[in-house]
Amino acid sequence: MTTTYEQGMSMLRSHFGDRADAMVEKLGKISSDFADINVTFPFGQLYQRSVLDQKTRELLAIAAITCLGAGTPQLRLHAYGAMNVGATKDEIFEVIIQMIAYAGFPFATNALIAASEGIDDWEHEQD
Amino acid sequence: MTTTYEQGMSMLRSHFGDRADAMVEKLGKISSDFADINVTFPFGQLYQRSVLDQKTRELLAIAAITCLGAGTPQLRLHAYGAMNVGATKDEIFEVIIQMIAYAGFPFATNALIAASEGIDDWEHEQD
Amino acid sequence: MTTTYEQGMSMLRSHFGDRADAMVEKLGKISSDFADINVTFPFGQLYQRSVLDQKTRELLAIAAITCLGAGTPQLRLHAYGAMNVGATKDEIFEVIIQMIAYAGFPFATNALIAASEGIDDWEHEQD
Amino acid sequence: MTTTYEQGMSMLRSHFGDRADAMVEKLGKISSDFADINVTFPFGQLYQRSVLDQKTRELLAIAAITCLGAGTPQLRLHAYGAMNVGATKDEIFEVIIQMIAYAGFPFATNALIAASEGIDDWEHEQD
Amino acid sequence: MTTTYEQGMSMLRSHFGDRADAMVEKLGKISSDFADINVTFPFGQLYQRSVLDQKTRELLAIAAITCLGAGTPQLRLHAYGAMNVGATKDEIFEVIIQMIAYAGFPFATNALIAASEGIDDWEHEQD
Amino acid sequence: MTTTYEQGMSMLRSHFGDRADAMVEKLGKISSDFADINVTFPFGQLYQRSVLDQKTRELLAIAAITCLGAGTPQLRLHAYGAMNVGATKDEIFEVIIQMIAYAGFPFATNALIAASEGIDDWEHEQD
Repeated sequence: MTTTYEQGMSMLRSHFGDRADAMVEKLGKISSDFADINVTFPFGQLYQRSVLDQKTRELLAIAAITCLGAGTPQLRLHAYGAMNVGATKDEIFEVIIQMIAYAGFPFATNALIAASEGIDDWEHEQD
Repeated sequence: MTTTYEQGMSMLRSHFGDRADAMVEKLGKISSDFADINVTFPFGQLYQRSVLDQKTRELLAIAAITCLGAGTPQLRLHAYGAMNVGATKDEIFEVIIQMIAYAGFPFATNALIAASEGIDDWEHEQD
Repeated sequence: MTTTYEQGMSMLRSHFGDRADAMVEKLGKISSDFADINVTFPFGQLYQRSVLDQKTRELLAIAAITCLGAGTPQLRLHAYGAMNVGATKDEIFEVIIQMIAYAGFPFATNALIAASEGIDDWEHEQD
Repeated sequence: MTTTYEQGMSMLRSHFGDRADAMVEKLGKISSDFADINVTFPFGQLYQRSVLDQKTRELLAIAAITCLGAGTPQLRLHAYGAMNVGATKDEIFEVIIQMIAYAGFPFATNALIAASEGIDDWEHEQD
Repeated sequence: MTTTYEQGMSMLRSHFGDRADAMVEKLGKISSDFADINVTFPFGQLYQRSVLDQKTRELLAIAAITCLGAGTPQLRLHAYGAMNVGATKDEIFEVIIQMIAYAGFPFATNALIAASEGIDDWEHEQD
Repeated sequence: MTTTYEQGMSMLRSHFGDRADAMVEKLGKISSDFADINVTFPFGQLYQRSVLDQKTRELLAIAAITCLGAGTPQLRLHAYGAMNVGATKDEIFEVIIQMIAYAGFPFATNALIAASEGIDDWEHEQD
């Protein structure tokens, strides 16, 4: 029987590849409970839900983190994840361009730069 | 020749129907410049862009405003707009459920309530 | 066997009394999935954890929502909950006074007013 | 000898007139310590400083609260205060229009509406 | 005939000198559309408006970005810009000191450090 | 007679040890007024108040800064301070785990990493 944790790790890997394991390992060295919850709740539960496909979910995550402002490492990772589940570079940038209207220029600018780094991460792996 | 303002109003109406005119009129009584910019920039320019369809844009707007926290009237309007451009109730709620992971429960809860009011607004007009 | 949902509802009621049921019912009429997650994750899982007692958790929740700014209804409820699990009026106000340094005056002021309403709610029930 | 509290109340009244006393009285009924700090620190200390004149300070406060998002009552009061220390309606709206670039449309829209109410409050008293 | 883009670039350069071109070039390598909008909307349109002078606008931008919290690179640039359009070091720090009351100490502290770097950037160029 | 400044420095040192002096010196080189206010108001006044003990105040500060999102250096310092006034590593992480529900995963994750660095700072000094 697949546990919620295993489903979460599987979902995380389908979005972020090896970076999923690296992230969980990094957080787990600090607090294994935090790392577990980060796997089981958002990725083992919320991202497992139907209605929205994974590409849409990644675009929504990018919109969300742009508006939070202070989530640069997460934005980079989700831009990588968006590419990995089938979004295009143009779609990711388009989300951030729309966010100018909601989050203002400073947050949109920082998101654009972080997203371009995440896209670069992904493109370098395709070589 | 269609002006940016006219394109913006047309886009606004395709999302929000008569509520577009009511919003612009309300803001215009306070500051016609602000109302004009609200029409021409986000709706005459950003929402005119391709790459993302209008339904996706409304779902992204709902994600964004959920994370801002203090945009209850806008969330109600965009939930109405999302229904109007073809999103389902389930999709709107699913966006907000995903946002629990990015915005936390207080903002997601307030967004859920505001969105349900915007959906009610739309459903009552269908009768 | 007690389920996570039942543990969550039990925790919610130990903090918020009948208001727990009212909140879950209100949210459940909009989205039963959202209401379920609101019971099972924060209250069935996070608040079930040891290390911090429930009174400290309520004071932390008040600090958190003060800093979020836009969580007035939640702040009222958590002030009620804080009283209910043994905090004093002075402790709740002291948390908000400390938050002046982190969240600034507008958010601290709105939190103070919302908290005083939640304390009133609780005091009226003791009569 | 004038105390910091008296200087703060004097500054508060020079910005907000009778509304200063109403605000302090309202907060003081909840927590006299909070009310005292609200008088002595921002208005008895920060606003007493030179370098920036009071009109500029009110415009800066409006910019700030627009970006916070959830400070609607404070924005209304500071728009009143801005008028009272010599700002014009156009200057107040111009600040909020500039803030579109930093805070996005939902927060700017809510700020515009709250500011117009504060300006109305002030104009009605001039009759 | 001067286009909105040219007016925007001219305004950007009058605030940020060569840093304007560097910023637009950096963003343009990621997304030329984003870079164009960053020139035409805030600087080709909003900052072109009258009522408020450019020095006041820079001080308002510093207040705004202090309250956003996560705009450190923008705060550095706007502190440079404020110096460049005639603000003094004392005025910039005074804005941030006032912001303690609205944004709290962590954001004000980070803004102070970023602003001092932007002021250093400007002062080094004057040698 | 002990002044508010001396009381503030004494409180700062009891939380942050030599890092208190380093922080005040760093800020003081930029703006001595800002540095003074940072000593006298939060630590000479707010943290001097009774009702809540210093350990609880540090845990509340960690909750607050987690929710602000962009206060990474402050979070590191307050995690150090929390250890220094008697909190345990587990208590600090538990606060951040609770904050998942209020601030979402990106801010909680960044807070966890910053807190672990502050705890490391403290542990290295105990050797």
